[in-house]
Amino acid sequence: MTQLQKARRQETTPEMERVAAKEGLLTVEVRHQIAEGKVVIPANVNHKNLEPMGIGEGMTTKINANIGTSLDFPDQAREIEKMETAVRYGAHTIMDLSTGGKVDEIRRQILSRCSVPLGTVPIYQVATETIAKRKAIVDMNIDDILDVIRRQAEDGVDFMTIHAGLTLHAVERIKKQNRLMGVVSRGGSFLTAWIMKNQKENPFYEHFDKILDIAEEYDVTMSLGDALRPGSLYDATDRPQIDELIILGELVDRCRERGVQVMVEGPGHVPLDQIVTNVKLEKRLAHGAPFYVLGPLVTDVAPGYDHIVGAIGGAIAASAGADYLCYVTPAEHLGLPGPDEVRQGVIASLIAAHAADIMKFPGRALQWDDKMSQARRSLDWKAQRELAIDPDRFDEIRNKYKSSSDACSMCGDLCALKIVDECFGINRSGYKKQL
Amino acid sequence: MTQLQKARRQETTPEMERVAAKEGLLTVEVRHQIAEGKVVIPANVNHKNLEPMGIGEGMTTKINANIGTSLDFPDQAREIEKMETAVRYGAHTIMDLSTGGKVDEIRRQILSRCSVPLGTVPIYQVATETIAKRKAIVDMNIDDILDVIRRQAEDGVDFMTIHAGLTLHAVERIKKQNRLMGVVSRGGSFLTAWIMKNQKENPFYEHFDKILDIAEEYDVTMSLGDALRPGSLYDATDRPQIDELIILGELVDRCRERGVQVMVEGPGHVPLDQIVTNVKLEKRLAHGAPFYVLGPLVTDVAPGYDHIVGAIGGAIAASAGADYLCYVTPAEHLGLPGPDEVRQGVIASLIAAHAADIMKFPGRALQWDDKMSQARRSLDWKAQRELAIDPDRFDEIRNKYKSSSDACSMCGDLCALKIVDECFGINRSGYKKQL
Repeated sequence: MTQLQKARRQETTPEMERVAAKEGLLTVEVRHQIAEGKVVIPANVNHKNLEPMGIGEGMTTKINANIGTSLDFPDQAREIEKMETAVRYGAHTIMDLSTGGKVDEIRRQILSRCSVPLGTVPIYQVATETIAKRKAIVDMNIDDILDVIRRQAEDGVDFMTIHAGLTLHAVERIKKQNRLMGVVSRGGSFLTAWIMKNQKENPFYEHFDKILDIAEEYDVTMSLGDALRPGSLYDATDRPQIDELIILGELVDRCRERGVQVMVEGPGHVPLDQIVTNVKLEKRLAHGAPFYVLGPLVTDVAPGYDHIVGAIGGAIAASAGADYLCYVTPAEHLGLPGPDEVRQGVIASLIAAHAADIMKFPGRALQWDDKMSQARRSLDWKAQRELAIDPDRFDEIRNKYKSSSDACSMCGDLCALKIVDECFGINRSGYKKQL
Repeated sequence: MTQLQKARRQETTPEMERVAAKEGLLTVEVRHQIAEGKVVIPANVNHKNLEPMGIGEGMTTKINANIGTSLDFPDQAREIEKMETAVRYGAHTIMDLSTGGKVDEIRRQILSRCSVPLGTVPIYQVATETIAKRKAIVDMNIDDILDVIRRQAEDGVDFMTIHAGLTLHAVERIKKQNRLMGVVSRGGSFLTAWIMKNQKENPFYEHFDKILDIAEEYDVTMSLGDALRPGSLYDATDRPQIDELIILGELVDRCRERGVQVMVEGPGHVPLDQIVTNVKLEKRLAHGAPFYVLGPLVTDVAPGYDHIVGAIGGAIAASAGADYLCYVTPAEHLGLPGPDEVRQGVIASLIAAHAADIMKFPGRALQWDDKMSQARRSLDWKAQRELAIDPDRFDEIRNKYKSSSDACSMCGDLCALKIVDECFGINRSGYKKQL
């Protein structure tokens, strides 16, 4: 049985208990949210040593790091290093998007070392295997798809992006929609090509129940992919995007009817003032299903800095109710990220998530900030380092610009804190006790 | 006469014309906003070769980069390199906050090479000169202050942070306000010490008219400093901060009465959901004066990444009406930044400003994004590089992760854009002409 099915029977699982403990909630509260479909715990029955994570309304905002080989960089060891880097710096989940090298083997290697929930996009593997058979992507069929999904589910994949919302009807209409970027989702592009060539309904949509059979068996959480996510500000919140969101909402109902956990994917490039609308719309059209957003990217012009662009959008989205942020790295739009870009992407997303959680859950989230400010106030550099979101980075910069005083090299002995301490006659070491 | 005095007489200056041309507005529109006090053009009559900049309502959002020596890093050449780096990457203004080495000489060197408006915080130099005379900061007097302000004005400084809003009355009350961080503004801490020791009114407040005499003579724009800006989320939007903002509003009136251009400084550490309130409050209490905000920083826990934290807050502040963002670098809270941190701080602030301008002025700002998306759509890497906010960074990452295909190494030949092109039978080179 899935977490959802058990929650509906008011059965408590170890995963629910663990999530409740981490979130500082009662288990019954978490269970209630799962039963309502407002929270998911992606936890494949075959994923050993999993640290379960709650995603959805009432949970702190989670962030995901994408890793995985590409045709240009099929090196397995590099992707394992990226996975370990992402987890070390705080990623709550990992997605393996491998398309280069031995995809099954890479996934199994990653799963065996990955304590956080692992997601995949099965169509990527279907496409690479179809190509390997010297066929074109448009030649894949539902058996190829179900074969990959079953293999990945058996391995222990906790959640899968399923692009079932792109319909034949939508593909026929999209050419009239004056999109600037067209289809930028990779899975969406494979399916657009497949649908156009075969003039048949999207096999993920057509055979959605067969996919749910497997999902139910292993408790794989469905992450309904947005094949038509906007790839430029120009295309944001347009008819194709919202049209697909309505279909995704219908698919949420079908997952819930089957007892399969489900969340919805969204955004991409969205202007700052359309983000809240996107979040509210998903929560309404998908009946409160957890919302998993990429970015959102609030400008198109900053390749090399899209982790910052995504942090701006992510903070706004999460504060409006998005539950789960997919990171963007500085390599976005330029190439496959390496470990350093993974680290930067993870931290930027964590900052966005935490900034939003301060608003969503001030009681829980602000304690960290208050402790940091106390440490800062008392010029306690050791405590500041320990509390820093990235202590390694703290050291890197502090050691680069050392000061001769006990303050920092920005102001040295002209430090505002030191000066005010002196004039108020305050003994700095007393600060910790004051608060 | 100042730009404000001329605007009131409906006289058009070359600076107004230049600003109007850059903003894509009519000169009469810019002049009207200046006459109303809603826009300033910081342009000291003695600053040669100045590229004037309009700051305020109706103007695109501007960003400032702080540079300047410290006690630990008094090297003049390094600060000139930082100034040049900041201007090269797009800073609209520079502030020289030097407190180490020969402060007059450094400022003059910077001014002679600085084509954008230059600001200072005169109390920093007053403090260093007072200390150099083997006296304490609390020994400075109004003559020392006016001497520095006049010297800087004569040199051509375009705008000055004047901490005239911190009153004797406020200092007496602040101890009861349960602030976590107390006073974190450096100028504010000097004045708190001075006021407590001397038990007299803040000399900048007491003798504000004498400061305005000099400001009027050289057309130095007053940037009213917020001595009590919050240094932690815990202290944000508290009574001391808003109390001071009211005084700053009164001082705005006094500047305007004298025909002196004026803007108001604000934020620091502010939770995401209090930013809009801060901006609306300033616009109301200071009667529409341009709002110049530091950050805002939406969390305290990310030293090493405060440029990202500030970009989140800055984008929200600017989209709510803040006119001018002071950058924050990755070295904030850790040390004096070097050239690389200056570059990162400038770009992060520019991203925030542009993301907000897309909302404020979609007609003007979105053209850049649309061009970038067109270039991306047609896989035109040369055009993408030219349009990138930082073409050097574009090269650094793209060269690091090269692809064997004409797409990027993220997807290689599995590029969504390429696949959809093929299935729609689109010749990619035709894209540029389509839009």
